[in-house]
Amino acid sequence: MHTVDQALEAITLNVAPGPVETVPLCEALGRVLAEPIDSDIDSPPFDKALMDGFAVRAEDIADGTATLTVIDEVTAGQVASQAIQPGQAIQIMTGAPIPDGADAVVQVEDTSIENHEQQVRVSIDTRPVVPGRNMIHQGTSMRRGDTVMPAGRQLRPQELGLLAELGRQTLVVHRQVTVGVLATGDELVTIDCQPGAGQIRNSNEAMLAAQVRACGGLALELGIARDNPEDLSARIADGLKCDVLLLSGGVSAGRLDLVPAQLEAAGVNEIFHKVKVKPGKPVWFGTSPDSVVFGLPGNPVSSMVCFELFVRTALRRLAGLSPAQPAAAAARLARDFEFRGDRPTYFPGRLEHHSDGPRVTPVDWHGSSDLRSTANANAMIHFPAGDQGYRAQQWVEVFEWSGRA
Amino acid sequence: MHTVDQALEAITLNVAPGPVETVPLCEALGRVLAEPIDSDIDSPPFDKALMDGFAVRAEDIADGTATLTVIDEVTAGQVASQAIQPGQAIQIMTGAPIPDGADAVVQVEDTSIENHEQQVRVSIDTRPVVPGRNMIHQGTSMRRGDTVMPAGRQLRPQELGLLAELGRQTLVVHRQVTVGVLATGDELVTIDCQPGAGQIRNSNEAMLAAQVRACGGLALELGIARDNPEDLSARIADGLKCDVLLLSGGVSAGRLDLVPAQLEAAGVNEIFHKVKVKPGKPVWFGTSPDSVVFGLPGNPVSSMVCFELFVRTALRRLAGLSPAQPAAAAARLARDFEFRGDRPTYFPGRLEHHSDGPRVTPVDWHGSSDLRSTANANAMIHFPAGDQGYRAQQWVEVFEWSGRA
Repeated sequence: MHTVDQALEAITLNVAPGPVETVPLCEALGRVLAEPIDSDIDSPPFDKALMDGFAVRAEDIADGTATLTVIDEVTAGQVASQAIQPGQAIQIMTGAPIPDGADAVVQVEDTSIENHEQQVRVSIDTRPVVPGRNMIHQGTSMRRGDTVMPAGRQLRPQELGLLAELGRQTLVVHRQVTVGVLATGDELVTIDCQPGAGQIRNSNEAMLAAQVRACGGLALELGIARDNPEDLSARIADGLKCDVLLLSGGVSAGRLDLVPAQLEAAGVNEIFHKVKVKPGKPVWFGTSPDSVVFGLPGNPVSSMVCFELFVRTALRRLAGLSPAQPAAAAARLARDFEFRGDRPTYFPGRLEHHSDGPRVTPVDWHGSSDLRSTANANAMIHFPAGDQGYRAQQWVEVFEWSGRA
Repeated sequence: MHTVDQALEAITLNVAPGPVETVPLCEALGRVLAEPIDSDIDSPPFDKALMDGFAVRAEDIADGTATLTVIDEVTAGQVASQAIQPGQAIQIMTGAPIPDGADAVVQVEDTSIENHEQQVRVSIDTRPVVPGRNMIHQGTSMRRGDTVMPAGRQLRPQELGLLAELGRQTLVVHRQVTVGVLATGDELVTIDCQPGAGQIRNSNEAMLAAQVRACGGLALELGIARDNPEDLSARIADGLKCDVLLLSGGVSAGRLDLVPAQLEAAGVNEIFHKVKVKPGKPVWFGTSPDSVVFGLPGNPVSSMVCFELFVRTALRRLAGLSPAQPAAAAARLARDFEFRGDRPTYFPGRLEHHSDGPRVTPVDWHGSSDLRSTANANAMIHFPAGDQGYRAQQWVEVFEWSGRA
């Protein structure tokens, strides 16, 4: 039986980054670059004022006071018509280019204007002025030709702003993957039904589809497959048209756990079945030439945790993200906790942030069918195998879930 | 001039939760509930097997060994046709209801089947069996009538799974807000242009629109307004059709900073102008009967930081989220840092997670026009006003940006 690390390694080895496409900038949020980005400009593109005030020669105001002749005004988007000579200033707005001859800006709050014999003069009273004050030099932030983003970068608002500054109207990114979600089991009814004796509503479809969407994938809800080979094989054939197929249920040791056999019959090659993990031990993973397939356990918390550990890794890999594997963080336990278990366990926890760092509380959890507990949680705490008493304040490994509650 | 806390307080006071609508479950990811959710079922709805194996009477196997007569089989979705008597067992699948008379499940791995004179018998060899083993009792996770989610809860995958379990096909949630983004300034050119002397491309529109989308809002890109009252007032009138209008630029002390006056002329009531914060001091906030309006500074990092602090608070408030104000976390500084500044500063930083907790590194930052530095960051570090030498390992307040880089 694979360990979690071996399973993650197997996924990373067997799933390759997906195909690319070109999208407009305004649709690229959350997508992953498939090309490195070089700058076509210096930024700022010119020496630039950072304040409204007066462009000056610092040496004219070395002691902080001066009265200068105002020879021009330059606003953002314009260029001054003449250079500054000793004893002169040009009124300037934030964002405007620094005129030739000037090497500093005195902010307007430190000045007063005097009209003097048809000349405008500015009286300055401030701390000693040094070159570079209230301005930024051309190319300080980036130089033309610099590589400002590597391929593999996920695009957040600031990347999109930067790409707009570089004039990138379109970008080559990894294509969004389509993910089919197929719940299996004779006990399932659709959510519009009142469950009869022994029945439960299909909660996994809505949950897994949302997990897919939260990862940036395109979820297709494929309904419920019944525990017979005919129905299951037909729906699997349909699901294999997706880049990724997620099944839930039917992967344990029971007589009606038909998923692994039907997947292999459909040409999906098993990479692993069962992982030493709780919840989620029966998880199945395989690939076909065109699809990546997970058989997730039917209990909803098992399904959710296996998604966070394994499916997310595959989706990140397909999306071109590296590292693809789950990002561990750490938090102090908020209370003593007696852990019992012979498998590494991912336990629902409530992560909170305090001025002395993060703290996590294991929530009241009744096992793999108890979805309610996960709605009270925002992270999973990793407890290694083996009974152990953990102490409050002890650091433990946590994996934060996306979103807040 | 407002402090950051006063500004956040003013936003919270002047922005009320927005209207509600009913949406289908499959479109509710990220939306905020406007109704509390009560359970219409017990969960699990019946005493349920957690393993494939045999439903038994624990007292028959108190020492861990027994040979029992198998009288029936029950799979998930079915109900056993008869009750278990002493000496009997019923084969059971994960998820199936526990038959009457049984109070534990022995997993199939601990059993062997014997066919014995037309009777099927199961031989069990395991550790002593206590009632409740490998099963979960009806209502353990939740009881019919329990309130399982309060109004104001943001819907993540696990909430959607739980709502599906409760049969909720539709939900009452807060409506998505429309947010107009209007950049202002004569220096701006559209991103398909090669900037001329003194010009820069409009990076704020793409960035702010993406920040809106990352918050769950509907962004409308309204183009560039020029620094004259006619163009600005026409575009403001258009933008006030949105629930929220964001302008960037034109809010400083300069002669062409027309935004505050044009907003007031359009009937937007100023709540505050200028906040003691860096970057972002000139930020303007006001309301009209139908809109919430922010005048953000034109420099992109100022604009971005003011969005994260102030606009996000307004959007969270409109969405019905509480608390609406930014969620502070803490991290240890990864290196010594000399801070100089007379305003509280939100400094781009790179937050990383280690086994002994989070660490943050201030990135190389060249001020409010240096968007590139924010692409190297994933958080902002809050340094209070006042020159101070911070030491490596010291805890500082951080605000994580959404998404990863």
